[in-house]
Amino acid sequence: VYWDSLDSSLVLLDQRHLPVKIEYIRCKSPADTADAIHKMIVRGAPAIGAAGAFGMVLGALKFNRNLNLDQFLMDLHNTKDTLDRARPTAVNLSWATNRMIQVAEFVAKATNSIDRVVDALLLESQALSDEDVDINKRLGKFGAELFPDTVEVLHHCNTGHLATVKYGTALGIIYSAAEMGKKIHVWVDETRPRLQGARLTAWELMQCGIPLHLIADSVAGHLMSKGKIDAIVFGADRVSRNGDVANKIGTYSICVLGKENSIPRYAAVPTSTIDLDTPNGDQIVIEERNSEEVTEIQGQRVAPENVPVYNPAFDVTPARYLTAIVTEEGVCYPPFEKSLAEAKQKAEVRMSELRAKRLNSYLK
Amino acid sequence: VYWDSLDSSLVLLDQRHLPVKIEYIRCKSPADTADAIHKMIVRGAPAIGAAGAFGMVLGALKFNRNLNLDQFLMDLHNTKDTLDRARPTAVNLSWATNRMIQVAEFVAKATNSIDRVVDALLLESQALSDEDVDINKRLGKFGAELFPDTVEVLHHCNTGHLATVKYGTALGIIYSAAEMGKKIHVWVDETRPRLQGARLTAWELMQCGIPLHLIADSVAGHLMSKGKIDAIVFGADRVSRNGDVANKIGTYSICVLGKENSIPRYAAVPTSTIDLDTPNGDQIVIEERNSEEVTEIQGQRVAPENVPVYNPAFDVTPARYLTAIVTEEGVCYPPFEKSLAEAKQKAEVRMSELRAKRLNSYLK
Repeated sequence: VYWDSLDSSLVLLDQRHLPVKIEYIRCKSPADTADAIHKMIVRGAPAIGAAGAFGMVLGALKFNRNLNLDQFLMDLHNTKDTLDRARPTAVNLSWATNRMIQVAEFVAKATNSIDRVVDALLLESQALSDEDVDINKRLGKFGAELFPDTVEVLHHCNTGHLATVKYGTALGIIYSAAEMGKKIHVWVDETRPRLQGARLTAWELMQCGIPLHLIADSVAGHLMSKGKIDAIVFGADRVSRNGDVANKIGTYSICVLGKENSIPRYAAVPTSTIDLDTPNGDQIVIEERNSEEVTEIQGQRVAPENVPVYNPAFDVTPARYLTAIVTEEGVCYPPFEKSLAEAKQKAEVRMSELRAKRLNSYLK
Repeated sequence: VYWDSLDSSLVLLDQRHLPVKIEYIRCKSPADTADAIHKMIVRGAPAIGAAGAFGMVLGALKFNRNLNLDQFLMDLHNTKDTLDRARPTAVNLSWATNRMIQVAEFVAKATNSIDRVVDALLLESQALSDEDVDINKRLGKFGAELFPDTVEVLHHCNTGHLATVKYGTALGIIYSAAEMGKKIHVWVDETRPRLQGARLTAWELMQCGIPLHLIADSVAGHLMSKGKIDAIVFGADRVSRNGDVANKIGTYSICVLGKENSIPRYAAVPTSTIDLDTPNGDQIVIEERNSEEVTEIQGQRVAPENVPVYNPAFDVTPARYLTAIVTEEGVCYPPFEKSLAEAKQKAEVRMSELRAKRLNSYLK
C-alpha cells in the first residue's frame, strides 16, 4: 500500500496471485480503490484502512474545485460511503475514512479553501500510513514479550507486511520475537478458502528467513493435541467492547481447540480495530462471499457444478476463548470491557496530541 | 470397487479426478492394486479392504500353478505384505488380506489343490464385498435412529458409495435417515487437503437428491457456535480397544468443537475397523503424505516453491470426545472398552456362522 506522488495514484501489490505472480495495481479513483478492496487485491484490516484513506484523497483530487466547499464536503461523504461498503466487517476502513472526513471538515472550516483541504487530506493519509508502521512495531514488542525464548507458534490467515502498511500485527509479534533473538518456529495454516496463509504468510516468512511449516487448517488441532504448539496468534477485523473478536473464518475453531489444550490465544490488534460502540460480537455483521472461492481454486473446479455453498468470510470468537488482546498500548487481559477501554483511552490521549500537532501544521 | 469376471480384473472408479472427470482404472496385478490404493485412486477404509481382497485374487491368478502349495501360500503372504504397506493406518486392508490368507490356508489343507484355493479366494473376495454392503445397511439403520426427524448434520471426508463397496458408513446413516423419511440437510466440509468432501461427498449427495451446503473446513466450528448443527458424523480408519478413533485429519477438531457446543459426535464403523489388539490411539501409526497435496491443487501451485509442509493424513480423536460409535451390530456407548468388545463379539458370532457355511461350500 503506497502512494505514488508522481502520478497521484495508489499502488497496491495484487495479493490475489501471490506468490505465483508479483503484480502491482494502480488505483486512480475511489471506485478503483473500493473495487480493489472488495476484490481483495488489498486485504488485512490495517492495509484496508490505509487504502481507504488514500481512496479519499483520490476522490478529493478529482472533485471539481469550482464547486463550493459544502458541495465538496458532501462529495467527500459520498466517497466515504462508497469505500466503506467495500468490506462491511472491517472497522479500520470506516475508521480511516472517518478520520479523513474530520480533517477535511476541520481544514475547510478554518481556511475555507478546497485546495488547502486537498493538501491536508494527502498529508493525513500519509500520516495514517506512517502511524500504522509505528503502531505495529509497538504492538509487536508487547506481544513478543509474552513468548518464551523457544516457541512454536500457530498463525492464522495473513497479518504481516501484506495485511498492514508494513511489518504486521500478529506476524509483527513473530518478527519482533525473531528480532529479539527468540527461537521461533511458525505453523502456518493455509486459511481456506482464499489461502492467505499458504500464499501470503508462508511467502513472507520465507522472505524473512523465519522457520515454518505450512499445514492444512484442520491439522492445527492435531498439533495442539500432540503438544506441538505453545501459542496461537492472529489479527482481527473488529473487536467489540466486551472483547469478542471478528476475524477470518477459522479463528473461533483454533481458539476453542487452543483453550481445550491449555495453549494461550492472542489476538493482535491496533486500538483502531477496537470498536467500543459495538457492545458484543452478536452485533457484528458477518460478510458472506461468493461460492467460487470454495468451488474453484486458481480457476480449477474442485466441487460439482451448482453445488450450494455457504462461505462466510469471518467468524466471531467470544471473549472467553481469548487469553489476551495485544495492542500498541500494551497487553489487555480479561475483563476486557475494562482493559480495552483503557487501551483505547491511552491511544486516544497519545493520538490526540499528535493529531493536534498535525491539524495545526495543515493550517500553516 | 468391482470385479470384472470377463477379463479377471479389478475395476475402480478413479476418485482423484471426480467430479470433473469420470474415469475407470483396471488393476491386473497386486502391484497395480497396491499402487491404486497408495495413490488413492480407491480410498475409504471398507473400499480399500475390498480392493485388497481382490488384489489377493489377482496375485493368486498369476502365480505359477506348477509350484507346490507351500510356495504358492508363501507367494500369497508376500502379496499380502505388498498390499498392506500401501496404506498403513487403515486396519480394514490388513483385515481383508488376512481373511484371504485364512481361506487359502484352510482350503489348501483340505484339498491340497492350488486350483481349488484360487477358486475359493475369488468367491471369498466377492463374499467380503457383498457383506460390506449388508453391513453398511445395518449400520445405517442403527445410526439413523439416533437422529431427530428434522436434522442438520455435519459430515467429514467421504464415507459413502465411493468409500465403501456401496452405500457407505457415515453417509450410509444419512442415506438411511433420508429413506426413513427424516428431513435431513448436510453440511459437507471440503476436507483439505484432498477435498474428498467437496469432490466426492457433495457429488454423491447431489446424485441422491439430499440437500446440502459445501463449506470450508473451518466453517464447521462457526456453524456449531451458531446452533446450526444437530449431529456430527464421520467414519474411521481404525478404532482402538478403548474407543480412540483414527480418521481423516480434522476429525479431532470437529469433535472437540462439537463437544464444546454440546452436539453429539458419532463415528460410523463396521466392526472390522475396531482393532482390539491396539489398546489406545497412541499406538496408531499416522501416515504422512507428500507435500504437494497441500501446495498444489489440481496441478495449480497455491504456495511458495520449497515451502516446508507437514501433511498428516489422519488424526486420533480420544474416546472422551465421542458420543457413540455406530456399528452394524448396534450403537456402542461409553465405556467403549466394554461396548466395542461386545459388538465385536456379536459380529464374530454372526460372521463365524456365515464363514463356516462359506468355507464348507469352498470344499464342495
